Amino acid sequence: MACRVYQEDSSVRTTSRFQVLDVTSIVEEAVSKSGIEKGLATVYVPHTTCGITINEAEPGLMEDIVEFLKEYTKPGAPWRHNRIDDNAHAHLGQSVLGHHVSIPVTAGRLNMGTWQRVLLVEMDGPRRRRIIITVMGE
Amino acid sequence: MACRVYQEDSSVRTTSRFQVLDVTSIVEEAVSKSGIEKGLATVYVPHTTCGITINEAEPGLMEDIVEFLKEYTKPGAPWRHNRIDDNAHAHLGQSVLGHHVSIPVTAGRLNMGTWQRVLLVEMDGPRRRRIIITVMGE
Amino acid sequence: MACRVYQEDSSVRTTSRFQVLDVTSIVEEAVSKSGIEKGLATVYVPHTTCGITINEAEPGLMEDIVEFLKEYTKPGAPWRHNRIDDNAHAHLGQSVLGHHVSIPVTAGRLNMGTWQRVLLVEMDGPRRRRIIITVMGE
Repeated sequence: MACRVYQEDSSVRTTSRFQVLDVTSIVEEAVSKSGIEKGLATVYVPHTTCGITINEAEPGLMEDIVEFLKEYTKPGAPWRHNRIDDNAHAHLGQSVLGHHVSIPVTAGRLNMGTWQRVLLVEMDGPRRRRIIITVMGE
Repeated sequence: MACRVYQEDSSVRTTSRFQVLDVTSIVEEAVSKSGIEKGLATVYVPHTTCGITINEAEPGLMEDIVEFLKEYTKPGAPWRHNRIDDNAHAHLGQSVLGHHVSIPVTAGRLNMGTWQRVLLVEMDGPRRRRIIITVMGE
Repeated sequence: MACRVYQEDSSVRTTSRFQVLDVTSIVEEAVSKSGIEKGLATVYVPHTTCGITINEAEPGLMEDIVEFLKEYTKPGAPWRHNRIDDNAHAHLGQSVLGHHVSIPVTAGRLNMGTWQRVLLVEMDGPRRRRIIITVMGE
């Protein structure tokens, strides 16, 4: 069968400055709608102050991720970017986490591990965040 | 020529808690078996406590990567996730390193740099680790 | 329409040891030349001492990214790899930033956010750096 592309633009609303949101069901639904059986699903955030990652959606760990990022990106520190905005930490955190994840699609479903969930990591909310999902394959 | 998808599920066994393993030959073999000449090879680990990255397979550097990760993810620190498990550091390390790499395929081979190798970074071993390779292209 | 692959090998020259370069226009041009309307553009650096990331090209932030990386990867520290070379920090920084970005292509253009730019992060320059762009889609 020949390869095809399915693309979808979704969004979520974050409710606090720092927040970890499980967006896996949005990605699963897109894969299901795509009808693609074998390939890759790529989840992309068109932003510079939130990240996207894969991890376990355990509430304690979700708080640890936020604490870990705060410790290393230092919100409120005298970063140069903070002279014109107050979110340098969020920009730095996104370059650490990344802006996309690519997940194998097998037998029409996300081929993730038992504990893996797709997590959007808000570092400069609350905001509306777009998620662009591209499913490519046969 | 039309695009196709080749997908393969491999695994490796890690032998200590922290370990950097060169898995490049597994990826090269999958690309060769795929028969795909031009496209991308995506290497994905369906886990939440090991990462996948690209770097030089120099033994000193492989130890440096482990030391660097330990310094920033702090195994044994009072992370909330450690109340229910003892591997928060490994979850945090995976979000830093990432769970996948995508490498161009050109003329039927991985188009990597001279010093680049695909490295699996174990942070909570020893375990059996799955590696899902998706080669897509013409 | 069936999927196709367009691949291009570009390069840039960095001019100092640490430097953040905006390479977005090179990627935009490749997408335009590809004629692909919907899919993904993957930008890959075949190196182990520079990274590729997406962030805002604000001059203060570009300096913050360099400072942030220096603080955590510690150039000149007694890393084992520094016994045979003096660039362990750059190898560690690349594993944090990553060696590729994948960006959705929609209606024949990069579907990035308003502030997003593709940034090459030099950590062991000055050097000539290759950039391999793979555009895949319909």
